[in-house]
Amino acid sequence: MGPHPAVAAIRLAVRRVLHDILTELNTPAGVPAATAVEPTPERPPGLPTAPLVLVACSGGADSMALASALAFEAPRLGVRAGGVTVDHGLQSGSDLRAEEVVLRLRELGLDPVEATAVTVGREGGPEAAARDARYAALDAAAARHGAAAVLLGHTRDDQAETVLLGLARGSGIRSLSGMAAVSGAGGRYRRPFLQVDRQTARKACMVQSLPVWDDPHNADPAYTRSRLRHEGLPALEKALGKGVVEALARTAQLSRDDADALDTWARQAEAGVRDATGGLECAKLYALPPAVRRRILRRAALEAGAPGGALFARHIEEVDRLITGWRGQGAINLPGKVVARRQGGRLVIRQG
Amino acid sequence: MGPHPAVAAIRLAVRRVLHDILTELNTPAGVPAATAVEPTPERPPGLPTAPLVLVACSGGADSMALASALAFEAPRLGVRAGGVTVDHGLQSGSDLRAEEVVLRLRELGLDPVEATAVTVGREGGPEAAARDARYAALDAAAARHGAAAVLLGHTRDDQAETVLLGLARGSGIRSLSGMAAVSGAGGRYRRPFLQVDRQTARKACMVQSLPVWDDPHNADPAYTRSRLRHEGLPALEKALGKGVVEALARTAQLSRDDADALDTWARQAEAGVRDATGGLECAKLYALPPAVRRRILRRAALEAGAPGGALFARHIEEVDRLITGWRGQGAINLPGKVVARRQGGRLVIRQG
Repeated sequence: MGPHPAVAAIRLAVRRVLHDILTELNTPAGVPAATAVEPTPERPPGLPTAPLVLVACSGGADSMALASALAFEAPRLGVRAGGVTVDHGLQSGSDLRAEEVVLRLRELGLDPVEATAVTVGREGGPEAAARDARYAALDAAAARHGAAAVLLGHTRDDQAETVLLGLARGSGIRSLSGMAAVSGAGGRYRRPFLQVDRQTARKACMVQSLPVWDDPHNADPAYTRSRLRHEGLPALEKALGKGVVEALARTAQLSRDDADALDTWARQAEAGVRDATGGLECAKLYALPPAVRRRILRRAALEAGAPGGALFARHIEEVDRLITGWRGQGAINLPGKVVARRQGGRLVIRQG
Repeated sequence: MGPHPAVAAIRLAVRRVLHDILTELNTPAGVPAATAVEPTPERPPGLPTAPLVLVACSGGADSMALASALAFEAPRLGVRAGGVTVDHGLQSGSDLRAEEVVLRLRELGLDPVEATAVTVGREGGPEAAARDARYAALDAAAARHGAAAVLLGHTRDDQAETVLLGLARGSGIRSLSGMAAVSGAGGRYRRPFLQVDRQTARKACMVQSLPVWDDPHNADPAYTRSRLRHEGLPALEKALGKGVVEALARTAQLSRDDADALDTWARQAEAGVRDATGGLECAKLYALPPAVRRRILRRAALEAGAPGGALFARHIEEVDRLITGWRGQGAINLPGKVVARRQGGRLVIRQG
């Protein structure tokens, strides 16, 4: 009898990602696959050390399921499996909590395993500040251990929530594209569960008798994501049907591909609309499709020093009207003290 | 003292659209603007007849507000204003209801005004069938009266709902692009209220003492849109904040521009990936960005006879794997008995 379907599903998801990682490790170095990908737990001395893959684990159901699947699959593929848990220090006793997660990861057979404490700042709000601190700690742990990759337990439900959060910004398809399956410097971060739903991860923990910890933050209505998870998304499912989470996750992937393609187009078109001195020629910008033109304008504003987080679609629309609705209007003030003005058929975007 | 801000807002929205219509009427014909756009209600004999603009009016707040604004603005711009109400025949007494709307439109000074009865079929579900019947009737009315345009009362809230309905399909950014401000053959349909919220339209009716009719269908939870309006969207606003409707409407516009640009790219790229006999070359398709390649595959499937409404993103993904994940897999069956297969480096998509 094989494993429970939920366990089979999480293992398959992890196996696929480990295969990708091994393929990539071998491809650039040109090492023959038979040597380095050898799917055996024990390697004779003299062969290169097995690559290390870490799991980032909070002790919640998603990342505990991920840790259990990594612990099962890694040795079968000649990969070493380790784990890191980040102590955000936001609740009393969080250090003990982290030690408990370390014990559980060790019980799964992961090695090395460590807890790393961070100090959460305030920039960008509580959720963004905690995220920044967490990724900095994971980057450091990956570097310290020479890990080939860090697995993150984000599920399809997390992806759906991220798409809705992006939708609420109203800033276009890039913000609808959710989390990438591969991200970070050198593709360090991998999200094997983006196609796995939260219920499956929870079920896999249950049938494997893995104790899980429910972070009270996840149910705190002070957090936007928590309100979305417990009220917004269920109401949307009730109105639109059960397929909403899957539809949102698919939208993320399609939007990401579309946004990538349009960014490529804008980069290529940009060279053609600049004059000899690097100025943007309004007549040439006018001839481009609006979607491409606005991306060029956004890039120019960012290059001039406008901070990305404060530069909204409505700012770019206003700059765009210097091209498409020119009637002698004055300079447009953008965030970061950047000013856009039209001068003799050229668009000038610069600070001050 | 000027009009109430809500009345000012709806009039401004209509005035802008009438200006657009007049500009377009004059531009292609090459008639000097001073002759044809003359902003005066009475024209000396011999000059061309004033253009006619119809409003499609259900008697609800949105379209009554639209009718009132058209009645006010049209004569000031030398435009004749008329109205049409469609009797869908779905409720008993709907014919009397339509006659009442006709009376109200006449009271506003519109002329011509007519009620037109339709038979709603069943194709595509009740909402789609009613919509198809309605637009066919409006097309016929516009042709009968020689109208330059038909105004529709869809508000920003309707647009937000449409975006969410598209999101639930998970079929990409075209389905997120909502309703167009200008649509139909020759740009016949105009939606002046896409930036106006429902509350403003309702308020404008109230302060102008216009009686409005609340269609019971709009509150019937049997309809997806109604559930979305009364439960889904309010819950989403509660979770994400009051700006959600505006963000969704902005997403519609940005997605539309992006989808248009990518369609253009795909059309241009398609010629380059076909061989002398019109076959699609896999190697050339492979080199394109996924967003462009999938659009070409979708166009090819539609051309081969696959019905658009049944052709989903997952179908196209499967066909795409014949290019990106070729391992000798068999033919892919698509809706409408269309089959996609890879043969000697060519992709063949055809019926049967």
